[in-house]
Amino acid sequence: MNHLDATGIAEAVSSGATTPGLVAEHFLAQIGRGEPDIQAFVSFDPEAVRKQAGQLEGCAGPLAGVPVGIKDIFDTADHPTEFYSPIYQGNRPSRDAHVVTLLRQAGAIIMGKTHTTEFAYMHTGPTRNPLDLSRTPGSSSAGSAAGMAAGFFPLALGTQTAGSLLKPAAYCGLYAFKPSMGLVSLEGVKPLAPSFDTVGWYGRSVRDLERVARVLIPGFAAFETESRPLRLGFCRTSRWPDVQPPVARAIEQAVAQLAGKGHPVSEVVLPTAFDGVFDDHQLINDCEGARSLAKEFQAHPELLSDSTLAMIKRAKATSWEQESAAKARLAQLAPQLAQICQPFDAMLSVSCAILAPVGLETTGPSDFIKFWGAFGFPQVNLPLARGEGELPAGLQVIGAFRGDGQLLITAQGVVDALAS
Amino acid sequence: MNHLDATGIAEAVSSGATTPGLVAEHFLAQIGRGEPDIQAFVSFDPEAVRKQAGQLEGCAGPLAGVPVGIKDIFDTADHPTEFYSPIYQGNRPSRDAHVVTLLRQAGAIIMGKTHTTEFAYMHTGPTRNPLDLSRTPGSSSAGSAAGMAAGFFPLALGTQTAGSLLKPAAYCGLYAFKPSMGLVSLEGVKPLAPSFDTVGWYGRSVRDLERVARVLIPGFAAFETESRPLRLGFCRTSRWPDVQPPVARAIEQAVAQLAGKGHPVSEVVLPTAFDGVFDDHQLINDCEGARSLAKEFQAHPELLSDSTLAMIKRAKATSWEQESAAKARLAQLAPQLAQICQPFDAMLSVSCAILAPVGLETTGPSDFIKFWGAFGFPQVNLPLARGEGELPAGLQVIGAFRGDGQLLITAQGVVDALAS
Repeated sequence: MNHLDATGIAEAVSSGATTPGLVAEHFLAQIGRGEPDIQAFVSFDPEAVRKQAGQLEGCAGPLAGVPVGIKDIFDTADHPTEFYSPIYQGNRPSRDAHVVTLLRQAGAIIMGKTHTTEFAYMHTGPTRNPLDLSRTPGSSSAGSAAGMAAGFFPLALGTQTAGSLLKPAAYCGLYAFKPSMGLVSLEGVKPLAPSFDTVGWYGRSVRDLERVARVLIPGFAAFETESRPLRLGFCRTSRWPDVQPPVARAIEQAVAQLAGKGHPVSEVVLPTAFDGVFDDHQLINDCEGARSLAKEFQAHPELLSDSTLAMIKRAKATSWEQESAAKARLAQLAPQLAQICQPFDAMLSVSCAILAPVGLETTGPSDFIKFWGAFGFPQVNLPLARGEGELPAGLQVIGAFRGDGQLLITAQGVVDALAS
Repeated sequence: MNHLDATGIAEAVSSGATTPGLVAEHFLAQIGRGEPDIQAFVSFDPEAVRKQAGQLEGCAGPLAGVPVGIKDIFDTADHPTEFYSPIYQGNRPSRDAHVVTLLRQAGAIIMGKTHTTEFAYMHTGPTRNPLDLSRTPGSSSAGSAAGMAAGFFPLALGTQTAGSLLKPAAYCGLYAFKPSMGLVSLEGVKPLAPSFDTVGWYGRSVRDLERVARVLIPGFAAFETESRPLRLGFCRTSRWPDVQPPVARAIEQAVAQLAGKGHPVSEVVLPTAFDGVFDDHQLINDCEGARSLAKEFQAHPELLSDSTLAMIKRAKATSWEQESAAKARLAQLAPQLAQICQPFDAMLSVSCAILAPVGLETTGPSDFIKFWGAFGFPQVNLPLARGEGELPAGLQVIGAFRGDGQLLITAQGVVDALAS
C-alpha cells in the first residue's frame, strides 16, 4: 500500500481489488510501528478504525476506504477535539465539522485526530519529523504532516492562517493544497484569523489533491492535464535574502530545469509597495486572533500559552485605525497582484526559507507562504527531493484567485517536467 | 421594565436598583402573555431562565441581568439547535457559539432560542408580527425580531446574509445593527454564504446596539455623541421604483426633516455599474449556499424545503466562471463605493421597499439591504413610526467598512434630529 496514492487506493477499493479492511490494517500496522517515535496523534482508536472500515465494505465513493488524518482543530463527533488547549480537555463535539462529514460521505476512514499547535497558532506539541526525529515537522498542522511522512495515512486535513499547511509540507516533503479563500466551508473549524483561515489538505500526489478538492468543493472543475508549455513566473519577494543557500539552490535548480524542459519561466520583481505585506499579515492575524480567542482569554488567561498571550498583548497595543489601514493596504494591493500574475499559469516561489530546523519548540518563519495567503490566492507545495539523506525543500506554486483548477493542472505539469 | 432599554436594565442591575431575578420575572410574564400568539421561540424553559438569573445576582457586567433572545442558527449547549430543519431535530451542541459565550460572560440571561427560517435561508416558520398578527415579522431572524417587538427580551441576536437582520427590523419597528464583515466571530454559527454571513443584533436604542458591540467586538471604539452637523448622503439605488409610496414618503420625510434640522443631506446617484449588484449578490448567495449545505443535500435531500432545493438547483446551473465573474465585479466596485461614500458620515436609504406583508410564507425582497451587505459595509435600521395604528417603515443608515463606531454615532445623531 506504500506505493499507492489515495487515488490508487480508492480505485483499488472501488474495483474490489482490495477492501477497506485490508487498507485499514496496513495503515494501522504502520501507525503501530511509527507512532511511539512520531507522536502524530492526539486521539487514535484502532477499533473505531476497524469498525468504520467494516461499514465501508462495497463502498465505491471517490475516497472509498481511504484513511485520512484530521488535524485536531476540526470538530469530530467520535473523537475529543481539544485544539491543543487545556481549556478544551475532554471537549466532545456533538457533530462533525462540515468537511469531516463530506469525507465520510465520500467513503474515507477517519483514522484519528492529529496534533495541532494551540488553537493553530504557535505553541507546539510533541510531534517529531519522521525524516529526522530531532527536527520539527513544522506547524501548525504538525500531526497531519508528520503522519503523512510516516505513512500513517495517505491523506490528511490541515488548515492555514499564516503558514500552517505549507510549512509542514515543506519540512516533511509533502504535496499540499490550500485552496482559494472561501471555497471550503469552515463550519466546525476553530477560527483564528478569519481573513486568512482556510482549510487545506495533504496527499501523495497532485491528483490526490484534486480528488479531495472535488469532494470538499462541490462543483470544483474537473482535472485535465495539458501538454502545452507552461507559462510560469518566479517571484522571490523582498524576503529572498532570508532563504538559506541549500534551499535557494534547490528552488533555482528546479526553475532552471523547468525552463530547460521548454517551460518559459519569467522572473517577476514586485513593486516595493508589496514589502509591507508580511507585517500587515501579522498585524491583522494578531488583531483577529485576539478577537477569536476573546472568550478563552476572558475566562482562562492562565491556561493560554505565552505565545498566544503575546499575540493578544500585541493586539491590544494595536489601534483600530492601524488594523483598518493594514486591511485597506491589502485590499488595494490585491488587484495589482492579480494583474501581475495574470500572464502566467502559475507563479513559483519557495515555501519556506529554511529546511526543517532542529528542535520541537519553534518552527521557523512563514513569510513566503503568508505573502500569497494574505490575498487568498490558492497555493500548492511540491516536495523537492535533494541529495540522498538530505531534507527536502518545498517549491511553492501559486495560482490566481479562484483559479484552483488551473493551479492543480499546472502543478501536475511542473511535477511531470521535474521528473522527466 | 417596558420603559427601559437594555443599557438601562444593566445599569439598574449593576447599581442594585433591581435584580436579575426581578428582571427575568418581568420578561417571563411578557412571554407568558404574548407567546401563544407570536410563536417567537423554538426552545424556551422558564426554569432555566430563573436559574441563570439566580446565578447572576450581584453581577456588574456590561449586560448584567439583561435577557437576550438567540436565533436558532447559533449553537447553544443548554438548548437544542435545529436551524428549523428536520435534519437537525433534537441536535444538542456540546458548546455555545462564540458570541453566546461572550454574552454570558457579560452577564446576559439567555432567554431561549428563537425561530429562524430553515438554515437562515427562505423557508419560513410560524412566527407572527406582533404589530399585526396577520403579517410576517420578516425573515430570517423572525423569532428574535418578533420577540423584541412583543417585549419578550430587550436584546436579541440575529444573522444577516441578504436581508435577514434589517428586514425583520423594518417590519417590526426595531433598532438593528449589522457590523462590518469580519468583526464578529462566526464560530458556532451555521454558515450559509460566507462572503456575506454576518452576526448582528437588535436592541431598544442605538446605545444598546453600541453596548453589545463592545461585548462582541473586543477593542470596539467607545461611543461618543457629537453635536456637529451630520454629513449625510441619501442613496436610492436603481431599485427605488420598487419602493411602495407610503414607505417612500416616510423615508423622504425623514430626509427632509434631517435637512431641516441643519444636517445637510446630499442625494447620491450611483453609476449604472452598480445596477448588477443585486443579481450578483443572489448568484454568489446561491453558489455559496449550495456548497455550505452540500452535506445535508447529499444525505437528506428529501428533508430540504422547496426554496432551499431551488437555490441548490440554481447553483448547479451556474458555472464556476459566472460565480468568479460576479465576485470579481463586487471586488472591483467595492473601492468605488467606498470613495462615493467617503465624504459622508453615513449614507441613508430605505431598509425595505414594502411594509410587512400579509401572510407568513413569504417575506418580500431584501434588495436595499443586500446591496450594502454585498460590500461588507455596516448597516443600521432605525424604526420610523408612521401614523397611529400604521406599520413602521425602516430607515437604513450605512457606514464605511470598519467605520462602525462612526456609524453608530451618526445613527444616534439621526435619531436625535428626528425626535427633536
